[in-house]
Amino acid sequence: MFDFSANADATDALRASFRRHASGVAVITTNDDQGNPVGFTATSMTSLGATPPLVMFSVARGASSWTAISNAEYIAIHTLGEANLELAQRMAADHTKRFTTEDWSRGPHGMPVFEAATSVLICKVRQVINIENNAVVVSDVIAGAEGQQDEALLYYQRSYRQTGAALS
Amino acid sequence: MFDFSANADATDALRASFRRHASGVAVITTNDDQGNPVGFTATSMTSLGATPPLVMFSVARGASSWTAISNAEYIAIHTLGEANLELAQRMAADHTKRFTTEDWSRGPHGMPVFEAATSVLICKVRQVINIENNAVVVSDVIAGAEGQQDEALLYYQRSYRQTGAALS
Repeated sequence: MFDFSANADATDALRASFRRHASGVAVITTNDDQGNPVGFTATSMTSLGATPPLVMFSVARGASSWTAISNAEYIAIHTLGEANLELAQRMAADHTKRFTTEDWSRGPHGMPVFEAATSVLICKVRQVINIENNAVVVSDVIAGAEGQQDEALLYYQRSYRQTGAALS
Repeated sequence: MFDFSANADATDALRASFRRHASGVAVITTNDDQGNPVGFTATSMTSLGATPPLVMFSVARGASSWTAISNAEYIAIHTLGEANLELAQRMAADHTKRFTTEDWSRGPHGMPVFEAATSVLICKVRQVINIENNAVVVSDVIAGAEGQQDEALLYYQRSYRQTGAALS
C-alpha cells in the first residue's frame, strides 16, 4: 500500500514523483526585441493534437528567455537526439554563451535554427497562460523539417539518457 | 540545411517531428459522477513548478475519460516504470476493461490508485483550459507517495521503451 504520510509536504511529494518520470528533450528558440537569438532547453514539450497541429511547453517566468518568449510572434522548437547532448547542455547553461558557436542559422520568419537537431518546427504563438511562476505557451505549427536521424535524447534523474530497448 | 519544403503540410510536419521525441508515461485516474473509476494513459504529464507544486497534462476532449476529468475536483497521477507495461497498455485500450482487475484501491479523496505504480500524486484540479479538440488540465499537488523502485517507462515511436544509459 502507498504510504501517504511519508512525504507530508506536497512539494517534496512532487519532487519524489518526478524523479521517477522521464522526459524527452527539446530546444526552443526565438528572437528578442533587438532581433538577438534567445532560447533554452525544455523538458515539457508536448503535442496538443495534430488537427490543427498544436504544441505546448512551459517556461519559468524568471528564465532568461522569458521576456522574449512572452512577446514572441514566432518560435522554433527542436527535437534532440543523442548526438545533441552538448546542445542540450549548452542551452541549459550560461545564457550569454548559447549562440556564440556557429551551429545555428536563420530559418523561416528569422527563427534561430540549430541544424544538428533531429527536427525543427516553426510555430506561431497562439496563447500564453500565466500560472504562478510559470507560463504555458501554446503554438500553432506552421512549418517543419527533419534533420539527422538519431535516437531521442531523454532527461531523467538529473542526467541526460539514451532511449532504451522496446518493451512491446 | 533543413528542407522546409519536404513537409508542406503542418500536420505532417508535427507528426514527423514527434516521431523523434520521447515521452515519459503516466496514468491519470479520477471518479465519474456515479463514483465509478475512470482513467487513461498520458504521455503529456509535466511539472509546472514545485513551489507551489503544480502538474499539468493534456487530454483529448473526445476521450472516454473526458467528461469525468472535466468535472473532477480531485485526480490521481501515477508515474510508471518498466514493470508497469501492462498497466500502460490496459489504460490506453478498451475503457470498459481498465478497472476490472484487482490491482487498484481507493486512496485519499476516494481516488482510484494503482498500487504497482512507481509513485502517485493526489491532486486538486485548479484549471481546465480548452484548446481546440484538447484540454490542458492544471492541478495542485496535495499529497503523494512512492511505490516500487523501477526505471521509468517511455513511449517512443509508437512503442513502450526502457530508459537507456546515462550520457552525462
